[in-house]
Amino acid sequence: MAEQVRAIRTRRAILSAAAKIFEERGYQAATISEILTAAGVTKGALYFHFQSKEDLAQGVLAEQDHQQIFVPDRPSKVQELVDVAVLHSYRLQTDPMVRAGVRLTMDQLAHDLDRSGPFVRWAEVLTGLLQTAKAQGELLPHVEPAETADVIVGSFAGIQSMSQAMCDYRDLPARVAALMRHLLPSVVLPSVLTSLHLGESRGSEVYAEATKTARLRQAAEAAG
Amino acid sequence: MAEQVRAIRTRRAILSAAAKIFEERGYQAATISEILTAAGVTKGALYFHFQSKEDLAQGVLAEQDHQQIFVPDRPSKVQELVDVAVLHSYRLQTDPMVRAGVRLTMDQLAHDLDRSGPFVRWAEVLTGLLQTAKAQGELLPHVEPAETADVIVGSFAGIQSMSQAMCDYRDLPARVAALMRHLLPSVVLPSVLTSLHLGESRGSEVYAEATKTARLRQAAEAAG
Repeated sequence: MAEQVRAIRTRRAILSAAAKIFEERGYQAATISEILTAAGVTKGALYFHFQSKEDLAQGVLAEQDHQQIFVPDRPSKVQELVDVAVLHSYRLQTDPMVRAGVRLTMDQLAHDLDRSGPFVRWAEVLTGLLQTAKAQGELLPHVEPAETADVIVGSFAGIQSMSQAMCDYRDLPARVAALMRHLLPSVVLPSVLTSLHLGESRGSEVYAEATKTARLRQAAEAAG
Repeated sequence: MAEQVRAIRTRRAILSAAAKIFEERGYQAATISEILTAAGVTKGALYFHFQSKEDLAQGVLAEQDHQQIFVPDRPSKVQELVDVAVLHSYRLQTDPMVRAGVRLTMDQLAHDLDRSGPFVRWAEVLTGLLQTAKAQGELLPHVEPAETADVIVGSFAGIQSMSQAMCDYRDLPARVAALMRHLLPSVVLPSVLTSLHLGESRGSEVYAEATKTARLRQAAEAAG
């Protein structure tokens, strides 16, 4: 057990170092030996967890999915979708690993890296939420969940890039709120629109709620 | 006059080479000597036109604005805005210089390069079109042209990145059409929506029209 905990910590240290180096140098220019130095682990330890630079980058990309910070179930799946977007915005502003994953995804020079993964996974998550929203009557009748999910994921990716280029993410909550106000009227029923929480502080509120839920879940698991 | 034509050609050859090298190597890793070799010009010629690597990148970025391929004036400014978007999509699919400019804009590792320029210039163009559209009664009453322009520019940037990552721009026209169908209902009057041309072949049609107009304009200038 102690060994397993140590292995998880080593893996995490390597991924943090990889995130830092990829962010500073770009995927193409980064080298494994720079990541080794930054992580402060042995070559053997690194290669035990990751076979190649591509493997390291895929590890950073996958961290977006694996950090166990979820939006709790909501009665309105449209609100849950909004909360997924604002939570991700908040984490982009505050978490270096999430930021590094998104930058790798947007790095058009990482030719040999399959960057489509995060786009595909986010689109799957949103498609699922929109299918449920449709089944329970929250959406306008013509909406195709998969198409709308693709539009939201693509738009969000660009809004965050624009915010990063203009002011290093400072105006991201306002831009995401504006995007939602522009997209949702063509997707959801007017009566659903009027009850949505879309304000700029929504991201930090959902983050506080999600981390509290995660702590309670961990405590419950440890207890029994 | 012959000298001026030669200078324009040299400048263009250097920018093409810079676009190619930036696209292959990324802004950070690219060197002026690589660009020199690719352009096949003397060091003196290069430094006559561009003082630094940053200057070269700004030149590539500015080419998006300087290629003189414009959407002709339309009675509906909303249609004109759609046509600006689909024309840019078409050029992204077909013109290496436009592609290189967009990739530089989206290159989050180009820390010392001001990448906000293209975002700001596109937002200005769209703000102008939306202001005229508003003045002539095409928009819903609550629309703020500058905010809506920012949402469209940011969304478009992400939609093109997603299309590039998923399939090297093959599905870009379909994705841009879907984006417009999602955004415009919260921006323009229903009666304007129903008369818009938004199909996937719109980009190539507008490109044919715009290049014809550009040729006629050049012929008129040469004649008189």
